[in-house]
Order: sequence, then C-alpha cells, then structure tokens
Amino acid sequence: MADLPKSVRINEEGPREGFQIESGDIPTARKIELINALSETGIHHMQIVSFVNPKRVPGMADAEQVVAGIKVNPAVDYTGLWLNEKGLERARASGRLKMEGRIALCASEKFLKRNNNKSFSEQDAYNHRAIAEFNQHGIPIQRASIMASFGCNFEGDIAPATVVGMVDRAHTIAAEYAIDIGVLSLADTMAWATPLSIKRVVGAIRERYPDLRISLHLHDTRGMAIANAYAGLEMGIDMFDASVAGLGGCPFAGHKSAAGNVCTEDLVFMCEEMGIDTGINLEKLLECARLAEDIVGHPLPGSVMRGGSLARLRSAVQ
Amino acid sequence: MADLPKSVRINEEGPREGFQIESGDIPTARKIELINALSETGIHHMQIVSFVNPKRVPGMADAEQVVAGIKVNPAVDYTGLWLNEKGLERARASGRLKMEGRIALCASEKFLKRNNNKSFSEQDAYNHRAIAEFNQHGIPIQRASIMASFGCNFEGDIAPATVVGMVDRAHTIAAEYAIDIGVLSLADTMAWATPLSIKRVVGAIRERYPDLRISLHLHDTRGMAIANAYAGLEMGIDMFDASVAGLGGCPFAGHKSAAGNVCTEDLVFMCEEMGIDTGINLEKLLECARLAEDIVGHPLPGSVMRGGSLARLRSAVQ
Repeated sequence: MADLPKSVRINEEGPREGFQIESGDIPTARKIELINALSETGIHHMQIVSFVNPKRVPGMADAEQVVAGIKVNPAVDYTGLWLNEKGLERARASGRLKMEGRIALCASEKFLKRNNNKSFSEQDAYNHRAIAEFNQHGIPIQRASIMASFGCNFEGDIAPATVVGMVDRAHTIAAEYAIDIGVLSLADTMAWATPLSIKRVVGAIRERYPDLRISLHLHDTRGMAIANAYAGLEMGIDMFDASVAGLGGCPFAGHKSAAGNVCTEDLVFMCEEMGIDTGINLEKLLECARLAEDIVGHPLPGSVMRGGSLARLRSAVQ
Repeated sequence: MADLPKSVRINEEGPREGFQIESGDIPTARKIELINALSETGIHHMQIVSFVNPKRVPGMADAEQVVAGIKVNPAVDYTGLWLNEKGLERARASGRLKMEGRIALCASEKFLKRNNNKSFSEQDAYNHRAIAEFNQHGIPIQRASIMASFGCNFEGDIAPATVVGMVDRAHTIAAEYAIDIGVLSLADTMAWATPLSIKRVVGAIRERYPDLRISLHLHDTRGMAIANAYAGLEMGIDMFDASVAGLGGCPFAGHKSAAGNVCTEDLVFMCEEMGIDTGINLEKLLECARLAEDIVGHPLPGSVMRGGSLARLRSAVQ
C-alpha cells in the first residue's frame, strides 16, 4: 500500500483508439465534439488521431479535418499517431499537434514481423532513420516504447528478461544520440498481462533501471486491465494510457463492447477513491463517456459511466 | 506477491444471481441446462436458486422445479438462498440442497433498514431465531456474513473499524451457541470497494482475528471487481463468490450487460495465469459463459469469454 503514487498522469487515447476502429461513418464534427469535451475535463495529454492509410483505416481518413476543427485548450497536449514517414509528415503538417519522438521496440519478433513487417535488426535500422528525422525537424525524443511486453499471440509468453533486454536495446540506441529516455512505455498489446506479470516485468526493469519512469498501455481484452493498472500503481507507476468509456474495441472481440483500452473514467475513479490525484474531473469525464457512447451508437464497456460515481452518493447522504 | 494463496475456492452464484434478475421468461429447462454444464467444470460449490416471493422475483418462481430437475454431480454442493423462515422451509423441502446456516449482519444500519426492514438490534434478534431454527433442523452454522462492508449508498463510507465491530458482534452471537465461525463473508453489496479499501478492511479484521478465513462477494457495478479480487488475493484471501459470464445485472445499471458479480471465468483466468489453482477447467467454463449469454439472450459482461484463453494461443505457438 505504501508504494501507491500520490498522483498519476493519464494520457487519453479514446478518440484515436476508438474512432480508428469504428466503421468510418462517424461525422467529423462529432469526433471534434468529443475531443473538445475531453479537453475540459482536466486531461492534459490526449492522442486524438492517427495518420494512417485511409483505405486501411477509413475511420481516420478525416484526421487532418479533426485536428483543424478542434478548439485548442492551451492546457492540453494534443498528439497524433503515425507508423511511417508519410504519417509523420502529415502529423507535422497539421501544425497543431505536439510532436513527440520515440524509440519504438517490440518484445516479440514474430509480432513485429506480422505487425510492422520487420525483424529486430530492421526495427533498429528504422529507429535510426526515425531519430534522424526527429532530429532534423527538432522533434524531441523522450520516450521508448515496447510492444508485446507481457506476451504475444504468435510467440507465447514473454520472459521479463526479454523485456529487460529490449530496454537495454533502447538505451544502446539512445546512447548513440545522447537521448535521455525519460519514459519507458510498456504495452500489453495482446492482453496477456496479469497483475502478477505486471509486477514481475516492472520489477525486473526497476532492478536494472531504478530511475526510469514507466508508463503502461493496457488492453482489456481479457478483463484484466483495471487489475493490471492497480498492480502498476502498487509498483509506483504513475503514467497510464487510457480510453474514455473503454473506446477502442478489439479485433478478437465478438462484439464491440467487449474490449478496448483500460477505461479512463474507471481508472480515474479507482485512483481518486484511493487518494491518488489525477487532476481530472470525474463527473465531466463521465459526461464524455456517455457522449462517446452516443457518438459510436453502441454500448461501450465503461462501468462507472453506468454505476455512477460515489461522490454523488456521498453528497446525497450528507 | 508472496502472499498470493496457492489455491482458491470459488462459489459459483451465476444461476441464482443471474436468473433472479431476468424477467422470468427463461424456460426452467434452460436454467437446468446451465447448472448441469457448470457442474462439469470442476466447480464444487454453487448457489443455484433463491426461495423468495415469486410475485416480487418472478425469475425464481420455478426454484423448486429447477432443484428437482438438475442432474446432481456428487462432487458439487448445491445451495439456495433464503431471506426468511418461509424460504428456509422451501429450501429444506427441496431435499437436494446442501443447507448452510449463517449469522447474517450488515455494516450499514440504514441499508439494513431499507433492505431487511430491521435495526441492528432487530437483526440480532433475527439471528437468534435463525440459529434456533438451524439447530432445530440440524443445519450447520459455519459462516458469518456482513453486507455493505465497504460502503453504502444510504450511509456513505463505512469505516474499517465499523466492520471489525460487526465481526465482534458475530463472535458475540456465535459464542452464545458455541458456534465456530469458520468463514467470514464480506460483501461489497453496493460496489463501493476499491483495492485499497479491500486491503484496509481485511487488514483491520486480520489484526484482531488473524485465523478467521475471509470470503469476498464483489459486485462489479463500477468495474472494480477484478481489481478488488486481486487485492484480496494479495491479502491471502482464498474464497470468492463469482458469477459465470458476470451474470447478475444490477439495478443501477443502464443496461443489463453493465454489472453483476465478479465474473467467474475472468477470475479463474486471472488466478490460473498467476499460478493459483482453482480446480476449474477454464475452457469448459467459457463454454458455460457462452451458454449463459445464449440463455439470457443479451450480452453479458464477461471478457475472457470473448477474448479467449491464453492456453489455446500457447498451444498454437508450440
């Protein structure tokens, strides 16, 4: 209990995670409506679009229009996702996003091959090219990320030592460019993590890199995301990606309300109820979650949006 | 991590929790079908019906027929729920249920008043009458239960000391009848618990009663149930009520797939993946979860039933 952080920083990914998996018929104005509403909740960091091939991801074909249409809250860092040089160019050209470089790694070579069509060494080469590009455009690089850090559908279990090896690899690359990896992002890309494996992997990394700040990206495909987040909190982790209403879906799921990222408002509820400051107004966030459900037009997996906060019950009692 | 138990005992409550909240048009044969399927999963303890007023709970009007119709697996203890003398008579008359007496308490007098129309002292009197009746019929009493142990919609937060006081009260009653309270069941009746409050309440009880075995009954109205179960495991708790597919629903929820008890197969998945033996065959249980969804005719909140187990992915890798 003693290790719980005093505050956490939540990176909202609902608009990007959610709208990229929807079928593409959501009006741009409604996406903007959700982003604008989220901007007023106290969230300080939000990934709102991805710059990917519109033929493959029709739900993100309007990424530029979304970015151009939002009402920018100066207190919020808005970011986008890209997977290649063309995407990076589009993100830069949008002009309103905070550009964040990263060293991108994957703990499973089989997944890397399937997802990115690269071997480990080809991914290293990609990172060198990407760093050159970030440097050329003055984009700061303060993060390394590791996909499939807790298991892989194509490779099976991933040993904590393998993940530590990937952190070593990130540091080797970073050292060449005098990059300070401020944050290490561990992604449970295929939802293999349990609270115990969160503790084991984080613990193994901490042994070797005690000062590295770790962020968790947790998928909820098997219902473990909130328990995994709690295990992270117990390890002192204070950065999480999350998705309002649990937006995101999952290709494994039989219906769209079954998965997605850890739900932002459920995570905020858990943190605030345990005395951990998120800086986010839960009631406003719950309104955003209900708005998200209205926009996508089908049930989303969030729980507190249905069960309601305890603050309202407490004030009714008093 | 060191405190995780080696094995847990899960009490399945899906048939009782689930069918009592459904509208009452589920054929008796289908209820029996699910109970029979659950009987073959390795579950050893299952609450299958409640003997309550059929006018108030039409979904349980066929309780006797359900009990009479199941194919009894001798390895399974089948139980029923009752709330008064009449219900107890019906349960006894069914002839096939394992009868289990308990001392029933509630940490919130306001909830007790609303739910059971009794004050604390009236509840004490009820317990004395119930114990007399259990003794008269040779029904063993090996459990005390405390509703609203983590918070109450009508009273607000419940202090750990209040719950400890209720455990004292249970022991005072038990001492009069030389009852050994083998198990203390803590219910998060209105879903107020967080992992931290689970640890605080369990910790406070453990300080005073280090040898008392504790069982948790966790509602998932606010999405915390699996994290709360994990917090319980970390405290060494090895008994849980759970509900296949998350059957149960919740009067607070806007739609029926939003709540219920902690989902049995998600709990089994988490335990088994962390090396904790449940004695339950997850794949068979997942089939039961899908059967439950087919029977109720609407989505249920279970996650692993959609995401699938990891055992299958592992065997595909090898």
